[in-house]
Amino acid sequence: MSQTPDSAVRTYIQQHRAAFLDDLTEWLRIPSVSAQPDHADDVRRSADWLAAKLRETGFPTAEIWPTAGAPAVYAEWPSGDPDAPTVLVYGHHDVQPAAREDGWNSEPFEPVVRGNRLYARGAADDKGQVFFHTLGVRAHLAATGRTAPAVNLKLLIEGEEESGSPHFRTLVEEHADRLTADAVIVSDTGMWSEDTPTVCTGMRGLAECEIRLYGPDQDIHSGSFGGAVPNPATVAARLVAALHDDHARVAIPGFYDGIVELTDRERALFAELPFDEESWLRTAKSYATHGEAGHTTLERIWARPTAEVNGIGGGYQGPGSKTIIPSSAMVKLSFRLVAGQEPDRISKAVRAWAESLVPAGIRSEIAFTGSTRPCLTPLDHPALQSVVRAMGRAFEQPVRYTREGGSGPAADLQDVLGAPVLFLGISVPSDGWHAPDEKVELDLLFKGVETSAYLWGDLAGTWRRAR
Amino acid sequence: MSQTPDSAVRTYIQQHRAAFLDDLTEWLRIPSVSAQPDHADDVRRSADWLAAKLRETGFPTAEIWPTAGAPAVYAEWPSGDPDAPTVLVYGHHDVQPAAREDGWNSEPFEPVVRGNRLYARGAADDKGQVFFHTLGVRAHLAATGRTAPAVNLKLLIEGEEESGSPHFRTLVEEHADRLTADAVIVSDTGMWSEDTPTVCTGMRGLAECEIRLYGPDQDIHSGSFGGAVPNPATVAARLVAALHDDHARVAIPGFYDGIVELTDRERALFAELPFDEESWLRTAKSYATHGEAGHTTLERIWARPTAEVNGIGGGYQGPGSKTIIPSSAMVKLSFRLVAGQEPDRISKAVRAWAESLVPAGIRSEIAFTGSTRPCLTPLDHPALQSVVRAMGRAFEQPVRYTREGGSGPAADLQDVLGAPVLFLGISVPSDGWHAPDEKVELDLLFKGVETSAYLWGDLAGTWRRAR
Repeated sequence: MSQTPDSAVRTYIQQHRAAFLDDLTEWLRIPSVSAQPDHADDVRRSADWLAAKLRETGFPTAEIWPTAGAPAVYAEWPSGDPDAPTVLVYGHHDVQPAAREDGWNSEPFEPVVRGNRLYARGAADDKGQVFFHTLGVRAHLAATGRTAPAVNLKLLIEGEEESGSPHFRTLVEEHADRLTADAVIVSDTGMWSEDTPTVCTGMRGLAECEIRLYGPDQDIHSGSFGGAVPNPATVAARLVAALHDDHARVAIPGFYDGIVELTDRERALFAELPFDEESWLRTAKSYATHGEAGHTTLERIWARPTAEVNGIGGGYQGPGSKTIIPSSAMVKLSFRLVAGQEPDRISKAVRAWAESLVPAGIRSEIAFTGSTRPCLTPLDHPALQSVVRAMGRAFEQPVRYTREGGSGPAADLQDVLGAPVLFLGISVPSDGWHAPDEKVELDLLFKGVETSAYLWGDLAGTWRRAR
Repeated sequence: MSQTPDSAVRTYIQQHRAAFLDDLTEWLRIPSVSAQPDHADDVRRSADWLAAKLRETGFPTAEIWPTAGAPAVYAEWPSGDPDAPTVLVYGHHDVQPAAREDGWNSEPFEPVVRGNRLYARGAADDKGQVFFHTLGVRAHLAATGRTAPAVNLKLLIEGEEESGSPHFRTLVEEHADRLTADAVIVSDTGMWSEDTPTVCTGMRGLAECEIRLYGPDQDIHSGSFGGAVPNPATVAARLVAALHDDHARVAIPGFYDGIVELTDRERALFAELPFDEESWLRTAKSYATHGEAGHTTLERIWARPTAEVNGIGGGYQGPGSKTIIPSSAMVKLSFRLVAGQEPDRISKAVRAWAESLVPAGIRSEIAFTGSTRPCLTPLDHPALQSVVRAMGRAFEQPVRYTREGGSGPAADLQDVLGAPVLFLGISVPSDGWHAPDEKVELDLLFKGVETSAYLWGDLAGTWRRAR
């Protein structure tokens, strides 16, 4: 599957490496945390920075697209060839919350290179993987002598991915005319490992909710009243405990209805990957595997739906003790979805299930805070095969297939634009997405640049636009 | 059961009412929160203040007794009569944590009178109920013309009750020679209501623990790893959910072994009280009753053991969402115990139960943070009957019997000193112990003063010391 690399591309990248890293570092300094309202200005600043940088790169059009929440950045660079396919690259410029005291070894928004790694919130998820396309397209032009890319290149870089993309669907629908594309390239996933380049063929969906439970009007004395009134923290715990049955299957009625089960061929492809559970556990910083009975770890994280509690809180959490029945408690839950599961239907099932478990005397508020549909690409799609070839040239290695356990709003693009969704990512599991000390491997980042540089020519040469 | 009040006592109390309230207010301003290390100086200041005030009251001896934690205050005032019984009054000068933002209508440590109520943390639990003895003994002397109380009066006012009295047993054992008494009067309980004076005949015990659960070494991405490794917040929730069975009985193996069941007479005495569940629920600020099947609400809060979660926490609790598997979670549990349950045995049962529920890959730390033994007084004890008569004179009403659902270290005094434990309290359920807007009813506070003024003479007159 590997192809011959292009020395002109490699030379160009080498010459522009330092400036590229300086620019990326500048962008990573902007704490564009979409989940925290006090960072709203930073998210806007991040969008402005990117739009300006894309114009500098050569995109004739680079615009800020406002939403009811955080703004997206849209850019386009027409090929000039009427038969060239149109490709829309998707990514996001917002990042997860991060604070030094969460366990970071350096400030999350002061990027630093240690060894051959760049550490910063967003280094891999997703600024690094958006930004490699800027040098990639310049290298493509330099190596081919073109003045415009071989494909009609569009970029849509949203600002709310880490908050569940609440306005993304609307944004895509509003601008559907300008976003039309023959294929969507999602640049927000990872590959198997430093040594095993892979392309991803599917992504899980996501439904998130927060459940607040209210008991007594105020904290009350557990000696005077304990044992005789319902405790909202107990109810919160019972909800979380009821998420799974004894086989670690999600116990919400209807949860598995209609899901697309793995084929034997897909299970075999998963099983062929050089998976070492011990080293996977080290990457997961965990000490045991635990999950749905009857499935391997890879099946559990890529192709099975899950329920996890992301946060739980209620009552006294400070030092010492406080013998109270708390007035309220809350849980934050997230559900990863696979093909065949619609977030709306899952949300209804979760609501009905939760309400059925709340006893008399406890008031509940259930809010669904974001959702993303799952998606899957056929293994034999011609554009997917272009990605595999471009990546093979960059890595000089065969490229294998994976899926992604995380979630992105790619399915909205698929639905609204009617275009297949492909995934191109160079992040590795140890990059620490959503965790302290997030980083990107610099060698892989530049393989991403190189893949981007090869991809547009391969796509234009092998796949003509639909008429 | 009511007796004739004494006009000399009432006149004396009326004359000294304002000064008494000024003094109590001064004491309540000291935020003697024993659970919070940054208030350690305040707890010491509270002890110093009280010792000085007891000397001013007339106690020839008033000392600070240090412990490995917060200091206690000890005072004694001999009767001079070789046949007089010795009574040890127990109370505490430390208070629960309190902050304005918890829902207080005024600063918790800036006492304020609204209506006929004094609002402050500690107003009822327990500074007000300790302090009424100071004016009580002065009124007793003024009305009887004595220069020393009719009984040998001792006070032991500890500083760690709200932290589970971790050093109280040691303190009592160290000073057992000086603490010898014929009866212990616990001045840290309540009565039925403003209209129904009662004496309490027993108090539940308490065992408290904090369980910390550690999963991944850091928060990890719920998309990349969710569904395949154990989540410590799920384990925390499953522990809390497993505390009770479907009949709201505590499901920890061995928990109910050996408990003293209620007699038919006690159940009948409980049932005779003017209990109105709707108004009790209002006092509990709650919207439904919920508890062990087969028992009334009064039985549940006074005579049945319970398990409650006082706090639970893990993962992301801020605004918005963060799709992680948290690195750790914790629960704070408390168990109310009844006669027949030893805290040490219960702690062992809780530890074994909790450890059995922690799956592979999760590390647990279980710390027992404090315990108190339960105790019960025989209904026909002569000293208990003195308390009933003194209270009847003050209130000019018959006095009934209750128990107390809360816990105090009274059983340690019973065990070490070999003395029966009696309970005298004028607090009412609406006083908001451990809650925002804690207060004491001023009318009842002065009935407490009056009861104290009658009690020493009644005890000395009807019950001679054991030889």
